[in-house]
Amino acid sequence: MNVQPPQCLVAPLNVPSKLLMGPGPSNSPLRVHYAMMKPLLGHLHPEFTKIMDEVKDGLRYIFQTRAEVVCCVSGTGHAGMETTICNLLEPSNVILVLQNGIWGERAADMARRHDADVRIIEKGPGEVFTMGEIEAAVQQHQPAVVFAVQGESSTGALQPLEGLGHICHKHGALLAVDTVASLGGTPFFMDAWGVDVVYTGTQKVLSAPPSMAPIAFSDRAMARVKARKTPVRSFYSDILWLANYWGCDGTPRKYHHTGPISSVYALREALSMACEEGLESLWSRHRSCAQRLYSGLEELGLKPLIADPANRTPTVTTIIVPEGVEWMKVTKYFMEKYLVEISGGLGPSAGKVWRVGLMGHNCTPDNVDLVLKIMKEALAQPAIRSNL
Amino acid sequence: MNVQPPQCLVAPLNVPSKLLMGPGPSNSPLRVHYAMMKPLLGHLHPEFTKIMDEVKDGLRYIFQTRAEVVCCVSGTGHAGMETTICNLLEPSNVILVLQNGIWGERAADMARRHDADVRIIEKGPGEVFTMGEIEAAVQQHQPAVVFAVQGESSTGALQPLEGLGHICHKHGALLAVDTVASLGGTPFFMDAWGVDVVYTGTQKVLSAPPSMAPIAFSDRAMARVKARKTPVRSFYSDILWLANYWGCDGTPRKYHHTGPISSVYALREALSMACEEGLESLWSRHRSCAQRLYSGLEELGLKPLIADPANRTPTVTTIIVPEGVEWMKVTKYFMEKYLVEISGGLGPSAGKVWRVGLMGHNCTPDNVDLVLKIMKEALAQPAIRSNL
Repeated sequence: MNVQPPQCLVAPLNVPSKLLMGPGPSNSPLRVHYAMMKPLLGHLHPEFTKIMDEVKDGLRYIFQTRAEVVCCVSGTGHAGMETTICNLLEPSNVILVLQNGIWGERAADMARRHDADVRIIEKGPGEVFTMGEIEAAVQQHQPAVVFAVQGESSTGALQPLEGLGHICHKHGALLAVDTVASLGGTPFFMDAWGVDVVYTGTQKVLSAPPSMAPIAFSDRAMARVKARKTPVRSFYSDILWLANYWGCDGTPRKYHHTGPISSVYALREALSMACEEGLESLWSRHRSCAQRLYSGLEELGLKPLIADPANRTPTVTTIIVPEGVEWMKVTKYFMEKYLVEISGGLGPSAGKVWRVGLMGHNCTPDNVDLVLKIMKEALAQPAIRSNL
Repeated sequence: MNVQPPQCLVAPLNVPSKLLMGPGPSNSPLRVHYAMMKPLLGHLHPEFTKIMDEVKDGLRYIFQTRAEVVCCVSGTGHAGMETTICNLLEPSNVILVLQNGIWGERAADMARRHDADVRIIEKGPGEVFTMGEIEAAVQQHQPAVVFAVQGESSTGALQPLEGLGHICHKHGALLAVDTVASLGGTPFFMDAWGVDVVYTGTQKVLSAPPSMAPIAFSDRAMARVKARKTPVRSFYSDILWLANYWGCDGTPRKYHHTGPISSVYALREALSMACEEGLESLWSRHRSCAQRLYSGLEELGLKPLIADPANRTPTVTTIIVPEGVEWMKVTKYFMEKYLVEISGGLGPSAGKVWRVGLMGHNCTPDNVDLVLKIMKEALAQPAIRSNL
């Protein structure tokens, strides 16, 4: 044997219990962990495909859609983004990306890799697009696809979407929306808003472990896929195969890939909890906890990056790091003293803000109060204000 | 609310306990399930990246490699195949696929989607390729990449690989090997055999739930990737990004995607168990259980599809369905009376064979004896032999 077994694997797996109040993943409730204790089934056993069907129905509720093609990509949020891009776009198709943070950048990167013609309209960190601005850009670029991000977790911005589907369809474009960091925490209506493709992650408001990307395609989006002249470049992410495996196309399920069985159990449990609570309650819980956070921050003299509360996603709040404060010393204080995660900025907001997540299981008044208490304590430390 | 919460999610998650003796997934031991009870961490927290490092070391042992780039794709086995194809091939590059079952077919499908020039040499179900046949084809087609499957789970064939790397390198080709259904159950030596890319799944011999595809790239393979003239078409599967996230490239980890935290815990535990047992013991346990199965089948008058035992992977045994027996009635008997899964054929072997998996946690003499006992019972049922 040339390579010997590593000594590091002799020690038992040791994981500290942290409270994850960053932009995700959030902690999973015990019920969701217990679901993963259930024994494995085959990926085409009838007991398992029944669970997949239940997951689909739960997702239709969360997405607020009656679309037939509702399923999961067997990969995390970015896999949902890539599935959207690679199914909707053919080489030289125009995609218009509404870019006001890192997710727009990534979608543009993926679209370029697919040889699409990428057009971008850009806004600064924390800003959102008006319907007038978007319609003007759609008129100018005549895109095949418009890509928007509902909750831009790098900046905390909440992009208004109502009416956007109508604008896109009027000009022959499809509307694709990233809701990874927002779905379940703020209203979203796939059908009523005319969204053609939407995807999310399991590890944010749904509070299951990261592992899959729930995704839905409208009939209009599926018609576009079926009319492609070139094959979808990814077999693993080909929505026609995925839709068949998930029982969405009315034909018997064929073996596509081996689904992540335990992760589907966990998502089923998370969806069951979301259905028990109800979307209205989820949305108002997120709104009121975010409001509690805003008020507490104001008392501490801290300013949100986004002035207008209507433009903030309740799931991720970005807080301007005051002058003279080293942001990383604060996040370290949270982690080292309390095992609580809050995070720094990302992409355009790096170094400028803290990001506090209030998502799903972790979105409670007690957790808001704890974050505020630690923040107050941290900012009072002389070492943290040493630059003043 | 247009779409109401579905009633089906009110019922608790209910999963029967089955013994999975098909070609995968196999059952996970409780230790592996317990690992998924551990609390979530952030995907870049130092405690988590340490666990990733431990997983890498465990994988280096299982792959028998000292390669730097050893990591996991955050998707199941097919995602490993697609990562291999999309990183190694650029449009019009020639790939030679050794096709003797469904996995070769799928690799060819993926390569065509990437606009590669696909050349195939083919063998019937259960047959393997000789080194002479492969070398002649390599000489003829001058491929950039040769793709082989070690354990062809659709037919039970075990492709010999020793010496193949040398043949490929002599002609300027890279060697990529699928070991999803074989790794850990039969000898494999990435470095000694000159394999450039190898991937596997978590749900077979490793006996963790399906969710990730462990993968390794040789230095030679990485040099090829770095010399690409076109970007890798997938961002999610771009090995340069993955290698960085997994701490394999000597530069600080950047945020690529959110890793499947709980699945990494489970894999860490599964690798820990594999290291405790040791590869020699794993290989001999699989060999001796397979031998026990072969002997028992002979006593029952059943014939393996593959005549030469040296060409059979011990992990998946294909058994010819005798004339007058309806294969599906037998698999149903196993499942309905005993909650034991054995499976029918797949692709070229569909309708012709049963497939019995002996993998990892489920590969025990007791399980072999149970399968044989049920098979004997099933074949004695008049209803199953009704066609005679």
